[in-house]
Amino acid sequence: MYSTGVDTVERLIESTRELLWERGYTGTSPRAILERAGVGQGSMYHHFDGKADLAQAAIERTTQELRTEVGKLFAGPGPALDRITTYLRRERDVLKGCPIGRLTQDPDVVTNPDLRRPVDETFAWLKALLTAVLTDGQNNGELDASLDPAATASTIIAVMQGGYVLARAGNDPAYFDQAMVGVVALLDRARTDAGRAS
Amino acid sequence: MYSTGVDTVERLIESTRELLWERGYTGTSPRAILERAGVGQGSMYHHFDGKADLAQAAIERTTQELRTEVGKLFAGPGPALDRITTYLRRERDVLKGCPIGRLTQDPDVVTNPDLRRPVDETFAWLKALLTAVLTDGQNNGELDASLDPAATASTIIAVMQGGYVLARAGNDPAYFDQAMVGVVALLDRARTDAGRAS
Repeated sequence: MYSTGVDTVERLIESTRELLWERGYTGTSPRAILERAGVGQGSMYHHFDGKADLAQAAIERTTQELRTEVGKLFAGPGPALDRITTYLRRERDVLKGCPIGRLTQDPDVVTNPDLRRPVDETFAWLKALLTAVLTDGQNNGELDASLDPAATASTIIAVMQGGYVLARAGNDPAYFDQAMVGVVALLDRARTDAGRAS
Repeated sequence: MYSTGVDTVERLIESTRELLWERGYTGTSPRAILERAGVGQGSMYHHFDGKADLAQAAIERTTQELRTEVGKLFAGPGPALDRITTYLRRERDVLKGCPIGRLTQDPDVVTNPDLRRPVDETFAWLKALLTAVLTDGQNNGELDASLDPAATASTIIAVMQGGYVLARAGNDPAYFDQAMVGVVALLDRARTDAGRAS
């Protein structure tokens, strides 16, 4: 079998992404990556320093995709809370967990600055995005001025991450959904009369 | 070295609990358990069928302790939302994550019914407890009758679980705290005038 360098790198990164999601970082051996990618050990070490280096490339690609996808969702029109509700309720592969958030439970990820950084930066990016959307909603008069946009943004991200945990514990996506229903109802209480009418 | 059977069982369970919290299930080898417990392989297999059996005993003990602790907290007096706020804000070893919730990110836990069951049952127990506290608050006239107690209970548990995720991602307990501040402020909006005055 012959493959170009680009093909090899691509197959290694995609195989690592799949395995990180399925098995976590600690549960993924270099050998499993090689087998899934169908490349030899020499090829891997030609392009990457090892498992951590490859995982970093895989995590960075996953976070980049998530940013693109979520950024598009929030670029659309509509009242602030409606856009957030759409985001909270959009279909997800809930039982697989969040490909980013799940990594934080892995001790070998959180103790490795190169692996933790893209995870941390993605949550910081998401928090800044949600804070801006909530602030827009206040400036437009849809949302109560007493709402703390940054704390509320943290709560929204946390309830999603925790929703994945509950769904996996119960092996049922309905556990995720119910947590979203609850937070959407709480957020609705922060709508102004104008925000309710819109 | 000589130890009684009770000592050996105890050391095996406690060592497994520590390792599950530090390294997760997939990241914990039978050998690491034996080393930490200071017992031989024969002793372990005399008392337990293997790693999964031992992990089940460890998880069941951890969930039992958590239920006792949380049950005590909610047995105290006070308005419903004040008790929930105290629960959300009590000190925790946040950066270590939730010893129960973290397990759901481990593929070898969620695919093993014996290991997933105690985790699932603990969340179901906690949800029933919080639902009852919120319902009490409504019956006492502290909380708005339009609040959905079960969905809100799910949201509260999810925001805590997600708070651990954010804290670990940022390596900073303040990320957990901010998510709690946000949900407490949202819950406060569901207080009735009587609930606000109390």
